Amino acid sequence: MTFSASTIHFDEALELESGRVLEGFDIAYETYGSLNSNKDNAVLICHGLTADAHVAGGHDDSNPKKGWWEAAVGSGKPFDTDKYFIICSNVLGGCGGSTGPSSIDIPRNAPYGLKFPVVTVSDMVNTQARLADVLGVNTFHTVAGGCFGGFQALQWMRSYPKRLSNAIVISATPRTTTHNLGLWEVIRQAIIRDPDFNGGDYYGKKMPASGMGLAQMFGIMIWMDREVMSDRFGLKFSNDGGPSYTLEPEFEFQAFIHKVGKNAIARFDPNSLIYLTKAMDYFDLKRGRENLDEVFSDVRCRTLLISYRTDWRYPPEQMEEISVALSNHELPNELHVLDSNFGHGAFIYDSEGALELIRRFMVSAE
Amino acid sequence: MTFSASTIHFDEALELESGRVLEGFDIAYETYGSLNSNKDNAVLICHGLTADAHVAGGHDDSNPKKGWWEAAVGSGKPFDTDKYFIICSNVLGGCGGSTGPSSIDIPRNAPYGLKFPVVTVSDMVNTQARLADVLGVNTFHTVAGGCFGGFQALQWMRSYPKRLSNAIVISATPRTTTHNLGLWEVIRQAIIRDPDFNGGDYYGKKMPASGMGLAQMFGIMIWMDREVMSDRFGLKFSNDGGPSYTLEPEFEFQAFIHKVGKNAIARFDPNSLIYLTKAMDYFDLKRGRENLDEVFSDVRCRTLLISYRTDWRYPPEQMEEISVALSNHELPNELHVLDSNFGHGAFIYDSEGALELIRRFMVSAE
Repeated sequence: MTFSASTIHFDEALELESGRVLEGFDIAYETYGSLNSNKDNAVLICHGLTADAHVAGGHDDSNPKKGWWEAAVGSGKPFDTDKYFIICSNVLGGCGGSTGPSSIDIPRNAPYGLKFPVVTVSDMVNTQARLADVLGVNTFHTVAGGCFGGFQALQWMRSYPKRLSNAIVISATPRTTTHNLGLWEVIRQAIIRDPDFNGGDYYGKKMPASGMGLAQMFGIMIWMDREVMSDRFGLKFSNDGGPSYTLEPEFEFQAFIHKVGKNAIARFDPNSLIYLTKAMDYFDLKRGRENLDEVFSDVRCRTLLISYRTDWRYPPEQMEEISVALSNHELPNELHVLDSNFGHGAFIYDSEGALELIRRFMVSAE
Repeated sequence: MTFSASTIHFDEALELESGRVLEGFDIAYETYGSLNSNKDNAVLICHGLTADAHVAGGHDDSNPKKGWWEAAVGSGKPFDTDKYFIICSNVLGGCGGSTGPSSIDIPRNAPYGLKFPVVTVSDMVNTQARLADVLGVNTFHTVAGGCFGGFQALQWMRSYPKRLSNAIVISATPRTTTHNLGLWEVIRQAIIRDPDFNGGDYYGKKMPASGMGLAQMFGIMIWMDREVMSDRFGLKFSNDGGPSYTLEPEFEFQAFIHKVGKNAIARFDPNSLIYLTKAMDYFDLKRGRENLDEVFSDVRCRTLLISYRTDWRYPPEQMEEISVALSNHELPNELHVLDSNFGHGAFIYDSEGALELIRRFMVSAE
């Protein structure tokens, strides 16, 4: 399988939704498989909040690190690299090689930090479209993504309705929810209130590890299913004994969330987390339009929608709204509501059902 | 109505569950109404996590501040002060006048801070029993409480089964849950990681306001029902406009959680929050016994159990366990599962249903 990881510099101004302008930007991306001569086999996979362009790996020695959606992409897999030219790019504002707050602001010769402009899902999709232009892809066979990646797939349908033939949207929503507005704000505050955050200017200094850890610990409490917690950890003490009568986090589950919190900082740039969650806050597919019907009026693609009954972040009703709006335009679409106690994260952590649906959808689209 | 607020000093050693000893301690308490000559009309109301002895007020000019369960206690109310002698005491470890981490550790002539010993629900109940002794109450007509107060009422049934004739347990559980272990740990970490926390030694210095605020913001995300959030705040921007494309918390809901966070510090001592949540972590009514049946073997009281279908912290199934164990001893008990979208907090914030059940239960106990 052909694999390539690159970063491309765009030496051209990008006007952002906010009206601010980025004078040039980088997009890091990976491709798997080859573009055919008709240039009609390209698939864009959009990544979730803390992922990156490395959607798959482990398939050759040059790239042993497994990707974030390893089960979905590869030879003979649902996104079959023998048939499709798969592209996954790091989002604008991210920290996986694309321009974001950790990039150098050239006039200042220092990382942007909080001087980076606020970017939206629409801005991210615009950079993906420019990347597609460079790669010779006019129309994507499929644009796919889950959660934040699903936001991007939906935004493609609005921004470039003629440039995709199929869309796969998983565990997403046409707009954020009040609860999500709150949880992202708390996560941002956990980071911002760490003195080491230093107004976002921590590069080359001490990282706000404590705040990032806290944000991650809070995240576990929000993402992890209560039944899973309970089945996996129960009320066991780490020492297999009874109470120590100290203030130590002596229960196994408490030790677990501390451990996850300690690992958080190594994985992701705190400023990127702030910018990307802000983009999620702003996500409202119909902003500036009357309703979803109007948003989809130029869409021509087939759409696969996958939701989970236990996804309380973006419940099936919100996915249903998308399906209804598409059906109002007689656009072929199928909504599947699956069961999994992994809820919102099921498409990654309990992916079998989703992968089978994607496989069938892709085969039927050949 | 007779009302009295006092603090009593116990000049006697209190051996704690941990084996440590407190050489003397204070208990702050309030009483409402009068003890009758038979001394059989005393009702102990146990308070929730961040409340205090001031369960009711506003009934005379000397005490205008409303209490935390104003609707339940007073003349003609479910806990009728014309009939009952109501006692509510601040828990050991609290910050409402009873001995806790903000109290002076006499040998050191400085606040205990984190040198305060870890205390458990059982320790708290032991101090309430000593208070009852002093007030001339051998057997309580009723011991009542919700959430953490419900833990105390249950502990009364275990520790002093002959000293209560009726129990009212609301929104509680016979033992904590894995999810609760996690959320208290995150809340404690939010406080502890604030540099102003200073290892618990912040008295007379700068309070860990940032950490307490963050803990409170996190708390909102955990306690507040998602539908209530959504109905009340939706996706409205504070300025009634659209995106500002800044990193400000510009949505109304975000402004709300910031506001609540700012008020948090004035209300409660951070160290007390740490100690009391630790006591909740340790709460397991059957610790050291075979099962709940064994715990209740000496109980003789009637029990009213009130749960809420939407209380995911301590779901009705956990209250059901209590009911089953009591029924196994043929002890009269009734479990009511009410509807409210206030979930765990409903007995305070949407209390009508619970108050009517308490009223009926108290009348039938006359």
